[in-house]
Amino acid sequence: MSGAGATSPVITLLTDFGTRDVYAGVMRGVIANLAPRARVIDLTHEVRPQAVADAAFLLEAAAPYFPWGTVHVAVVDPGVGSERRILCARTSRATYLAPDNGLLSRVLERDPPARVVSVENRVYFLPEVSHTFHGRDIFAPVAAHLAQGLDPCRLGPEVDAIVPLELPRAREREPGVIEAHIIYADRFGNLVSDVAVGDVPAIAEAELGGVRIAGPLCKRYVDRDPGQLLLLEGSTGLLEVSVNQGSAQEALGAAVGDELILRLHSTERSEVS
Amino acid sequence: MSGAGATSPVITLLTDFGTRDVYAGVMRGVIANLAPRARVIDLTHEVRPQAVADAAFLLEAAAPYFPWGTVHVAVVDPGVGSERRILCARTSRATYLAPDNGLLSRVLERDPPARVVSVENRVYFLPEVSHTFHGRDIFAPVAAHLAQGLDPCRLGPEVDAIVPLELPRAREREPGVIEAHIIYADRFGNLVSDVAVGDVPAIAEAELGGVRIAGPLCKRYVDRDPGQLLLLEGSTGLLEVSVNQGSAQEALGAAVGDELILRLHSTERSEVS
Amino acid sequence: MSGAGATSPVITLLTDFGTRDVYAGVMRGVIANLAPRARVIDLTHEVRPQAVADAAFLLEAAAPYFPWGTVHVAVVDPGVGSERRILCARTSRATYLAPDNGLLSRVLERDPPARVVSVENRVYFLPEVSHTFHGRDIFAPVAAHLAQGLDPCRLGPEVDAIVPLELPRAREREPGVIEAHIIYADRFGNLVSDVAVGDVPAIAEAELGGVRIAGPLCKRYVDRDPGQLLLLEGSTGLLEVSVNQGSAQEALGAAVGDELILRLHSTERSEVS
Repeated sequence: MSGAGATSPVITLLTDFGTRDVYAGVMRGVIANLAPRARVIDLTHEVRPQAVADAAFLLEAAAPYFPWGTVHVAVVDPGVGSERRILCARTSRATYLAPDNGLLSRVLERDPPARVVSVENRVYFLPEVSHTFHGRDIFAPVAAHLAQGLDPCRLGPEVDAIVPLELPRAREREPGVIEAHIIYADRFGNLVSDVAVGDVPAIAEAELGGVRIAGPLCKRYVDRDPGQLLLLEGSTGLLEVSVNQGSAQEALGAAVGDELILRLHSTERSEVS
Repeated sequence: MSGAGATSPVITLLTDFGTRDVYAGVMRGVIANLAPRARVIDLTHEVRPQAVADAAFLLEAAAPYFPWGTVHVAVVDPGVGSERRILCARTSRATYLAPDNGLLSRVLERDPPARVVSVENRVYFLPEVSHTFHGRDIFAPVAAHLAQGLDPCRLGPEVDAIVPLELPRAREREPGVIEAHIIYADRFGNLVSDVAVGDVPAIAEAELGGVRIAGPLCKRYVDRDPGQLLLLEGSTGLLEVSVNQGSAQEALGAAVGDELILRLHSTERSEVS
Repeated sequence: MSGAGATSPVITLLTDFGTRDVYAGVMRGVIANLAPRARVIDLTHEVRPQAVADAAFLLEAAAPYFPWGTVHVAVVDPGVGSERRILCARTSRATYLAPDNGLLSRVLERDPPARVVSVENRVYFLPEVSHTFHGRDIFAPVAAHLAQGLDPCRLGPEVDAIVPLELPRAREREPGVIEAHIIYADRFGNLVSDVAVGDVPAIAEAELGGVRIAGPLCKRYVDRDPGQLLLLEGSTGLLEVSVNQGSAQEALGAAVGDELILRLHSTERSEVS
């Protein structure tokens, strides 16, 4: 697979660098230098500082909508400068570049890699590599080279196992009762859970932070009156707890990691194991 | 009019999706897929959530500065998933795509459309359309097709009337006294009114929230000392209430919708009807 | 030097316009009109309002990483509309456009200009120039013309002296004791000083706001335990005060301008004069 096709290759950036400094802009400068035809798209630079799990969710949500051959660069990297590895994973549809800290766990589960290498070949880094800004000195130039068609094999040795994301998983606690979790809260206060809506077709009610939310699953915010809590089929295919024209996060005082209990109608059985 | 000229077409994005999630990035991914040569420019993604009137003002302020043939996509859409229509308006200089909720009212008053259609043809949507993220599933792919030269007629039937924006309008309350309103507050705390400066050439004084602001109309912030309130000829041609090197919004505790009373010099007459 | 090479020219934008209004987007619209092939990269639009010194630091930090021939546009401009000049500086590697208020001081010290002109030729401005939004009416169109290959000489007369940035400078207070200053605080709360790490090789300890921070200089955040203060070799080559996985700014209640005292080991001597 080569990134050099008839149209210019796409590179996405997902970081916790924020937008009030020039960290993200400098990464773009390095890329503009080395891959002048690449189209660089910001997924976001406002991941909560060092929130690897948030980044893992966001990358999984976004990647399927990008062109074949896109190079996705994700830098949320509490261990920058330590001996943690940097991974480059090549799948049948994209290339992923991220620290080996669990950030790629979700997206590679959905889009399994043909090969994962440890990024070590300094030929593709900037000449001087700082210990605190690998986004500029390693991730950006390596991404640019990948967008120009570099074979990941050139970056370093293949790795067998990557660091997994330490996360609870939704499970059936007892027949008809699912123990799920809030895995992400978006700008609007929608609370995304770790349950695919296809796995819980008939919800009687849910409970989050002591508050009961009546089923069934809604398809639209407007299925409830403004200000009301609802269980929603989210745009990523996951169940969300939302408020029509409001913030479920504020209404419930909820946070990422909170337990969400789902009670199914007795005649139904969940697919969550 | 075709978007496929010698230079690549421009698509602008104006939403309330924020920049800390990947909603805007995903829209760009969809566009990159379908219109690889399009240049995508963010107007802003930080419209106050569901503030249709803010979006209407911002779109009107920005659109005149974009190239001929630009496709402007505006998604502030409290009714997403309901039966509200999506409009595509083609004018002599641009194409506008937005929910039918008043968002296009201002810009189409200034740039009247030759034709407005209801966007209904699913051929131009993503194969799966969610009920909560039409930005990704409808607006982005339709914008990409329009940038590639698609005729809006292909999108759906022509519509006769669009939903208007419910807004007060500046009016002459009595001879020499204009009742105006604050329609937007920007990042600096400048308070934009609904009065064109050309309509009120000789202001004696203004009153906002019980505070009197002395005329005349200033052309520059520096026409008053730092910290002082002033009546300013804003960059959009509308009268603004500002503070030199400060925030009028904070100084006055003002908000969008507040009434602004303008008293003209007795020998002058306003053009506001 | 011409901006029209085999690849499209790069224009960077650095402003305090924020991202919740359309000011930055409108600048991009103007550029898209006049220089359709230019690649526009945002350094940031979230410089603290009117913080010229912050902008000067950020521009110096970012510029070296951009391609040869880049046009850097920086608009932090408390004097907009006054008689302050607008400068265009051409160096051997880039072109800089900014108000004459000290913003270019740092970057031109590192990258000395062959020529600096005062931007006055209205032929290259928008036809109507407001008094409050020169970013749109002057900076954007002039940058576009420069990216298209315009010779800066066409913009206006050469200037001899530019307004300097009024800043304290690190100095040796007594043998082995450096009086330095915090010149920038980033999103993570890292406090950047005005001392190059090469000038202070052996720090015994530092003092900031009454708090002592033990040396030596660290290369990595992870050289200290999470939550601990450290003296860091920053990614710009300047000494920073940081907290591993935390905010030094919050931990110390520090602000830009604060004094930072460095005590060197007695056998060492600083290069700071």
